[in-house]
Amino acid sequence: MKPLKIGVAGLGTVGAGVVKLLAAQKELIATRAGRPIMVTAVSARARGRDRGVKLDGLIWYDDAVALAHDPDVDVVVELIGGADGKAKALAEASIAAGKHFITANKALLAVHGAALARAAEANNVTIAYEAAVAGGIPVIKVLREGLVANKISRVAGILNGTCNYILTVMREEGRGFSDVLADAQKLGYAEADPSFDIDGVDAAHKLAILAGLAFGVRIDFESLHIEGIRRVSALDISFAQELGYRIKLLGIAEETEAGISLRVHPAMVPEQKPIATVDGVFNAVLLEGDYSGPVFLRGRGAGEGPTASAVVADLIDLARGICVPVWGMEESALEEARIVPMAELASAYFLRLMVVDQPGVLADVTAILRDHGISLESMLQHGRKPGEAVPIVLVTHETREAAVNAALAGIAALPAVLEPPALIRIEPQ
Amino acid sequence: MKPLKIGVAGLGTVGAGVVKLLAAQKELIATRAGRPIMVTAVSARARGRDRGVKLDGLIWYDDAVALAHDPDVDVVVELIGGADGKAKALAEASIAAGKHFITANKALLAVHGAALARAAEANNVTIAYEAAVAGGIPVIKVLREGLVANKISRVAGILNGTCNYILTVMREEGRGFSDVLADAQKLGYAEADPSFDIDGVDAAHKLAILAGLAFGVRIDFESLHIEGIRRVSALDISFAQELGYRIKLLGIAEETEAGISLRVHPAMVPEQKPIATVDGVFNAVLLEGDYSGPVFLRGRGAGEGPTASAVVADLIDLARGICVPVWGMEESALEEARIVPMAELASAYFLRLMVVDQPGVLADVTAILRDHGISLESMLQHGRKPGEAVPIVLVTHETREAAVNAALAGIAALPAVLEPPALIRIEPQ
Repeated sequence: MKPLKIGVAGLGTVGAGVVKLLAAQKELIATRAGRPIMVTAVSARARGRDRGVKLDGLIWYDDAVALAHDPDVDVVVELIGGADGKAKALAEASIAAGKHFITANKALLAVHGAALARAAEANNVTIAYEAAVAGGIPVIKVLREGLVANKISRVAGILNGTCNYILTVMREEGRGFSDVLADAQKLGYAEADPSFDIDGVDAAHKLAILAGLAFGVRIDFESLHIEGIRRVSALDISFAQELGYRIKLLGIAEETEAGISLRVHPAMVPEQKPIATVDGVFNAVLLEGDYSGPVFLRGRGAGEGPTASAVVADLIDLARGICVPVWGMEESALEEARIVPMAELASAYFLRLMVVDQPGVLADVTAILRDHGISLESMLQHGRKPGEAVPIVLVTHETREAAVNAALAGIAALPAVLEPPALIRIEPQ
Repeated sequence: MKPLKIGVAGLGTVGAGVVKLLAAQKELIATRAGRPIMVTAVSARARGRDRGVKLDGLIWYDDAVALAHDPDVDVVVELIGGADGKAKALAEASIAAGKHFITANKALLAVHGAALARAAEANNVTIAYEAAVAGGIPVIKVLREGLVANKISRVAGILNGTCNYILTVMREEGRGFSDVLADAQKLGYAEADPSFDIDGVDAAHKLAILAGLAFGVRIDFESLHIEGIRRVSALDISFAQELGYRIKLLGIAEETEAGISLRVHPAMVPEQKPIATVDGVFNAVLLEGDYSGPVFLRGRGAGEGPTASAVVADLIDLARGICVPVWGMEESALEEARIVPMAELASAYFLRLMVVDQPGVLADVTAILRDHGISLESMLQHGRKPGEAVPIVLVTHETREAAVNAALAGIAALPAVLEPPALIRIEPQ
């Protein structure tokens, strides 16, 4: 049968990985796809670099956008990255040229996903992006096809392996954030400029994609609440353990009566819950369907092999003639997402204060909480150091974030409170 | 757009659940599928019974096979069950009539899957069976499409919720098997005749399907090694905990140098591994891909909602025009499975003996193990009761099952050994 001919833009770790996988599993892929899949053209900046992969006989373009115009390319695979610039230009050119477009680019999809889907529909092609979220876990397929018969009420996930690795090492070794980050950078688990990962932006891109699919809505990426892990302290990780929780950077999208709550932040999860047990660089996603019940997925979220596995799965779908609407339905059927402001979030909270150990502090703190209608589930204070700084931990019952913020402003202003209180939301999962 | 018209055979819990789901999510399904999905005909034994679902206006057939010949039925959904009889006749008739066939029938697929796939190919239709394995977990889709670019080296799963529920309660409450089974029957978690579940046959049907897909082979169902949970004792569950393990009924299919190892049996899993933490009626599957790495899935394995969710996902696939080869490739491309005899299995073993507490017993036991080349990782014996029966637990290093069997025959013949030794394989996951 006629081979599916592809052009690969970007030959970094993932791009080279895709070329390698297609070569190594050539026969298996042809058997399963019903036809061969072959790379005919590539584009990357440095021609000379050794990528550990054979590129002989392939057409090389210096400008990736040229792939869109090569008549010998059926499908364009974009592995350049970035929400705008070359990646976006290539997406638009490929779609306009009537070519299917496959990408691992979460930023592009999170920011321009709806517009690109409209263009794809108009040109009768599809956009596939299994590799954009959670690498080796086929969560796009599970959401868009496997659980397609369900209303999804909640998506919660560990979507960034770098953060999960750092939080895991902090807990296991009782070390501080900066220290562990420096090690992660040496080991290649964190980038030289780690902010995209550790400030939660990468997880937020993935969450925006999952939420759009889960709820059938257009999401304005600017509407997400995003907190990273810079302010998670070894002290709070240790208190979490004492209280039976693990601290994870979660992406959460949930349907509430007031609209969709959409947020990335560190969260305390009861330690026996599946998501709490996911350590190291692993990713995980929990999906709540009204008929399926909870479906939990765990696997490698990044790296050459898992990402290539996802890209090639998309290619085999196309070779088999499988085309699913980009957002699981026609773009015109998507609704505008109504996002609930964080102030309206109802949650339980872990609060940690550093106070001078002197009589009356606790009475002041609890009076402020009472005045804002906040009741406590538990309180933790270890030992006594009269006149010195000691941590006090308060765990609230479910309450509104606005009330907690107001109470914390009052508490922070108390003379005996020495630094801004720490706040970590508690997620029941 | 033209609706997809379906005929439903069998209106038990699952059949009624499918009709209910299609009605309740009618608009959502039409939006996502791109066309309406409507039930036009049904078949079930008792016409009068109240199933909590509206059947007005539907054609009713007393003989399910008549659905295959109704020109107003595009797709036949078989929810009758059983490897042969009516279900098989309906499958054959539907396929011969050029209709796609959707089923939740694991026995039918496990026993006649290859022959039915050949017939389906010859008639240019497909067979879809997401509901046959692990209910709400879309594991067929994950294996056949999501991880399609991978060679799968191993599938291991908790595939029967009844067994997992019983083992969970036995552990949590320290109770015996028969006692917990009786309770499970009262609660509706186990059938009046529970043998299909607790003797491992149901799990084996599901494993045969997963193995066929994972390895691209035809499987002779008779070649599976099947042990159930009747002989798991409260004592062994307690020893397992002490050693840091959980006992789970696992279905395991793995590629080894000698061929495929294919078996259902109770297994000890290290308690921190994902599969060990899956309790109650939940199912879980671990898939090992050579590029994706390990992918772990967990969810509800049975019940009206999860099973209906899977059946309707298959329907929406068809409505969207998605057809995947039944076994992930053309039937003629499947190979014959070479199954490794259990005697050749290499595993670590938990062995428990009941012995008279008298001098020399341990020397005799360890001499026999040594004579069969079996080395021990650990040994457990609590307290002393001279002249009375005490349990001795032995944990071996990896060894051949043939050697263990031979050693156990010798050990069982010792006068001080009071009952047949218990053997539970240890799975590293």
